[in-house]
Amino acid sequence: MTRSRVIIENVQPQVESGLYPAKRTVKELVTFKAHIFTDGHDHIRAEVLYRKKQEKKWLKQSLTHKQNDEWETSLFIPEKGLYEFQIHAWIDHFETWYDGFIKKANAKVDVSVELLEGAIFLKKLSTDKKIVKLANQLEDKTKFAENVAWIQSKEFEEIVVNHPDKQFQTESNIYSLQIEEHRANFTTWYELFPRSASLNGKHGTLRDVEKLLPRIASMGFDVLYMPPVHPIGKINRKGKNNNVRSVSGEPGSPWAIGSDEGGHKAIHPDLGTLDDYKNLIKKANEHGIDIALDLAFQCAPDHPYVKEHPEWFKQRPDGSIQYAENPPKKYQDIYPFDYECESWQELWEELKSVVFFWIDCGVKVFRVDNPHTKPIPFWQWVIAETNKKYEDVIFLSEAFTRPKIMASLAKVGFTQGYTYFTWRVTKAELMQYMNELVHTSSRDYFRPNFWPTTPDILPYHLHYQGENMFIIRLALAATLSSNYGIYGPAYELLDNTPWNGKEEFNDSEKYEVKHYDWKKTNRITDIMTILNKTRKSNLALQSTWNIEFLNIENPNLLAFYKKSDDNSNRVLVVINLDQHNKQAGYLQLSSDLKNTQKGINVKLKDVMTGENYTWTQEWNYVELDPNRMPFHLFEVSIHESNL
Amino acid sequence: MTRSRVIIENVQPQVESGLYPAKRTVKELVTFKAHIFTDGHDHIRAEVLYRKKQEKKWLKQSLTHKQNDEWETSLFIPEKGLYEFQIHAWIDHFETWYDGFIKKANAKVDVSVELLEGAIFLKKLSTDKKIVKLANQLEDKTKFAENVAWIQSKEFEEIVVNHPDKQFQTESNIYSLQIEEHRANFTTWYELFPRSASLNGKHGTLRDVEKLLPRIASMGFDVLYMPPVHPIGKINRKGKNNNVRSVSGEPGSPWAIGSDEGGHKAIHPDLGTLDDYKNLIKKANEHGIDIALDLAFQCAPDHPYVKEHPEWFKQRPDGSIQYAENPPKKYQDIYPFDYECESWQELWEELKSVVFFWIDCGVKVFRVDNPHTKPIPFWQWVIAETNKKYEDVIFLSEAFTRPKIMASLAKVGFTQGYTYFTWRVTKAELMQYMNELVHTSSRDYFRPNFWPTTPDILPYHLHYQGENMFIIRLALAATLSSNYGIYGPAYELLDNTPWNGKEEFNDSEKYEVKHYDWKKTNRITDIMTILNKTRKSNLALQSTWNIEFLNIENPNLLAFYKKSDDNSNRVLVVINLDQHNKQAGYLQLSSDLKNTQKGINVKLKDVMTGENYTWTQEWNYVELDPNRMPFHLFEVSIHESNL
Repeated sequence: MTRSRVIIENVQPQVESGLYPAKRTVKELVTFKAHIFTDGHDHIRAEVLYRKKQEKKWLKQSLTHKQNDEWETSLFIPEKGLYEFQIHAWIDHFETWYDGFIKKANAKVDVSVELLEGAIFLKKLSTDKKIVKLANQLEDKTKFAENVAWIQSKEFEEIVVNHPDKQFQTESNIYSLQIEEHRANFTTWYELFPRSASLNGKHGTLRDVEKLLPRIASMGFDVLYMPPVHPIGKINRKGKNNNVRSVSGEPGSPWAIGSDEGGHKAIHPDLGTLDDYKNLIKKANEHGIDIALDLAFQCAPDHPYVKEHPEWFKQRPDGSIQYAENPPKKYQDIYPFDYECESWQELWEELKSVVFFWIDCGVKVFRVDNPHTKPIPFWQWVIAETNKKYEDVIFLSEAFTRPKIMASLAKVGFTQGYTYFTWRVTKAELMQYMNELVHTSSRDYFRPNFWPTTPDILPYHLHYQGENMFIIRLALAATLSSNYGIYGPAYELLDNTPWNGKEEFNDSEKYEVKHYDWKKTNRITDIMTILNKTRKSNLALQSTWNIEFLNIENPNLLAFYKKSDDNSNRVLVVINLDQHNKQAGYLQLSSDLKNTQKGINVKLKDVMTGENYTWTQEWNYVELDPNRMPFHLFEVSIHESNL
Repeated sequence: MTRSRVIIENVQPQVESGLYPAKRTVKELVTFKAHIFTDGHDHIRAEVLYRKKQEKKWLKQSLTHKQNDEWETSLFIPEKGLYEFQIHAWIDHFETWYDGFIKKANAKVDVSVELLEGAIFLKKLSTDKKIVKLANQLEDKTKFAENVAWIQSKEFEEIVVNHPDKQFQTESNIYSLQIEEHRANFTTWYELFPRSASLNGKHGTLRDVEKLLPRIASMGFDVLYMPPVHPIGKINRKGKNNNVRSVSGEPGSPWAIGSDEGGHKAIHPDLGTLDDYKNLIKKANEHGIDIALDLAFQCAPDHPYVKEHPEWFKQRPDGSIQYAENPPKKYQDIYPFDYECESWQELWEELKSVVFFWIDCGVKVFRVDNPHTKPIPFWQWVIAETNKKYEDVIFLSEAFTRPKIMASLAKVGFTQGYTYFTWRVTKAELMQYMNELVHTSSRDYFRPNFWPTTPDILPYHLHYQGENMFIIRLALAATLSSNYGIYGPAYELLDNTPWNGKEEFNDSEKYEVKHYDWKKTNRITDIMTILNKTRKSNLALQSTWNIEFLNIENPNLLAFYKKSDDNSNRVLVVINLDQHNKQAGYLQLSSDLKNTQKGINVKLKDVMTGENYTWTQEWNYVELDPNRMPFHLFEVSIHESNL
């Protein structure tokens, strides 16, 4: 039994009924929504209350009714942290009365009793002497006309707004909201194998990587991700092209971590020392670049853990340790941890100490290898522990797996995730996938990071393809998604040769040292440089959530518009998905760019070619010759007179 | 920190994260669903546990994986009551091992260590002497071939199934489920005004209604709903066609309840006595009919409550009582209760006592007038209180209002609700609306009741229309929805005249006594009789949730198929929505009627015409002449040889 007549349902943003926090960043407009309704015709008022967890004071903002009992309000939360929020709603009898009074007065209905009711509301809702005096005046029948005029005044309307009548307020559940730094939403990744970083044909080192920093920074990247830098297992080491046997001198896969030279807290001697690594981090930071460490929580058979902590692995009845398998296949070069073992808590603590060790060395970004093969509750715990102690640590989930598992990893705390973008090629596929990321509940927890290729994946549509296709995929990744990454040298140098017809690279860098011409620039590096520079100078490209696809009547042309949440910046992108042929079509402008009074007057500057356009019509002709430039990237402004 | 690696999400059925019970009936198949997944490749097993609330013992049934980490199972719950259920899921290491063993054995991989592992599992999961003995045998290397064969046997598979390895089981939240009697889902309503029940031109009485029972029963109705039977207010009584003033002798609206002759627990003297009412209930029950009482919780100005309990109404500063209003409009014939008043608990208790009073008189069905103008928490409380004390009471919500409020009333406990069917006319509208009712979350709480007209609503599409249109709307209501109702005499006699161009009846029965020829039968009553008889004898028509729309390439023809949850009964309906012209088209059979091996051999009997058909093709020609019969209602059977 309750006299609180207002119902609040479907509070947003929320993830799994509030089990996990929804995610936003300091530069995102946070929109709070709820379904709010009651019986009858009484007026409802509603507000959102929010505060950082552990703080006392709630901040408040009123919700407004949009349509169909759906209420909302939007605001920026400029300070990072874990927040909680709640929706309050109540029947405001004072406002109900006020609205009725205005309608009756306008209809010339007798309102003398209503004036007395107004006096009662004022006295109930305020002890302010001035207001009480005004209330008494309402009771004075000799001042009827004056009183009616006063209630119809702007001043009285403000009194109503400022005196909410919350007697039987309904309060929603409390939900949580993680506000993160802007770059949780905006990173530009470059991947290289440090052993291939040498400029002189030798096994590369961390010091060689240091020499590449100016190049990587000048191309506009801000995260440099290197596969594991730890000692590589010598037992059952893999050879070229994933051969189960290696020949002497082969370097092995960096993901087979651990040998007599050390484990997850050591640096591979061929790459250098821990000091070299710390120094690289420092130098990279000077270039505005973070070094991302690969967290690959598994062991080669000769990893020190195997000897020191056999209890952390599954032991078989014959005394051997259980290698990885997918029956009947065996992966004898990898021992997975047994996260359920008797001494699981010690194991988990040790793995946490690996994360903390590298953070203490200066690492702020982790690319997590195959997190979907380790327990989801483990990630939930280790990421929460990290966030308790450190600020602004980014975890990128490399989970190319089933949708619900990718989603779950994001919910429990991963900052970003690799995506199916790698396999979305046609206009319809790309639009459908973006809509799934942006316009479903996914938007509240899963931050996509788009990669055209990775060392593991050379997708079919790039097999033996030319420069145009690589540029198209690059432009898509860099403009659709605010987080994207490039498996660098192989991409720049157009490595398009698959292994055995599969979606893998021939002579994959995973199993051998490569020697690149690190001084070379070409059309791809030039375009990459402009793209990344444009991303940095256009806030609209620093969000994935603001995409609006535009009508363009050509299935080869993908067009979209992005506007920053603060309305300060606009871009418009048109990409020709056909790498061979010129494609043209008429594009319909976003309604955001139309001024209903003054018409259309939009200025566009193509940052790729430097060309300028003025559009004054709703539908506009565009034409893209892939051999010239497969896409337009327009900075958009509305002509002053139309603002 | 937890070693329970399985994640359970999106458990179904659930309403608002479990805040309200989901609704099913004893004849419905209950499908439990959840998203269940874990890291890696280990095997998951899952089960649903359910029990009546307050009972100790859980019943269990295994869930099976369907696709994309979605698990489900279906079962009948034949006993009414409020249930709770929970999903359990766990990584079954024994089954994982077993599956790997089979694959390895098939691939001729050495499994000698695996045999020892099998022994460990058996000993861990069972203390049964026989099983321990078998486990020991697995360790016997001399019996290698025998042991491998045994693990590959059916017997061993059963051991695996019967020994779940639940060590780190995950348990979902507990959700609730209301299992109601079948007729919560299957009622056929007939509405009449008892004051119009006279056979001899006088003011009708409850005894006159008694005389109509054989007619109503013979037409196949099982609920007889009469508007309020209480004394009607004399102050500010409404006249003919909702005139704000009545002339002497006018009977007033039955919804203006209460006068010096009594209130909500009294019978209008012109209708008879309380004993007459009890007697009518008894007689009706003998005909298989329940009498539905109209709960209209509001008062005429001369209702006894107004004098005895002025504190239950809003009192204005001038001492008057607040009438209903929608400013600047006033409704001075109605005083709403103030559900928020100081003595609200006494008021609510009194209203509850009204419900209990009539139940004690034999009423089991309530049609609730405008529940959306009374607090939703009040209904939640009063319905829950009723369910605590009485079984099988049906509450039909007459809330023709905004979608979220209709939904909320259903969630808090109303058994059935009036719907927008009254205004859904075209094929596209009807299909969209049915999909909304059946294929959204609505299905778990909102049971629709379809009414072509009510005393309040003569929809535009029936204004001045002929018999065919009335028959089409009747057939739609009776076959789309398992609950439907007819505002009887006006419908039978084709009352199609609106008042003032509005969706209201001219000379509405709400404000005057009517005199019908209660002995007349016609094409509409004949069709109604067959429809209701067919509904009774075909379980498939006793559900709304089993609808499958069929392809038929004519926008005037609506075709659908319904199969009972127990697979025992099938019907196929084709309705010509064009009242004037013959329409024809090819209809595609449901895939449920195709036997992939044996092809198609379906027998159809049209219960409206008695004609029989055999269809052996996927696409079949149908033709409907509305002047002969605007719809087919086929009882469908599959020829024995094709079963």
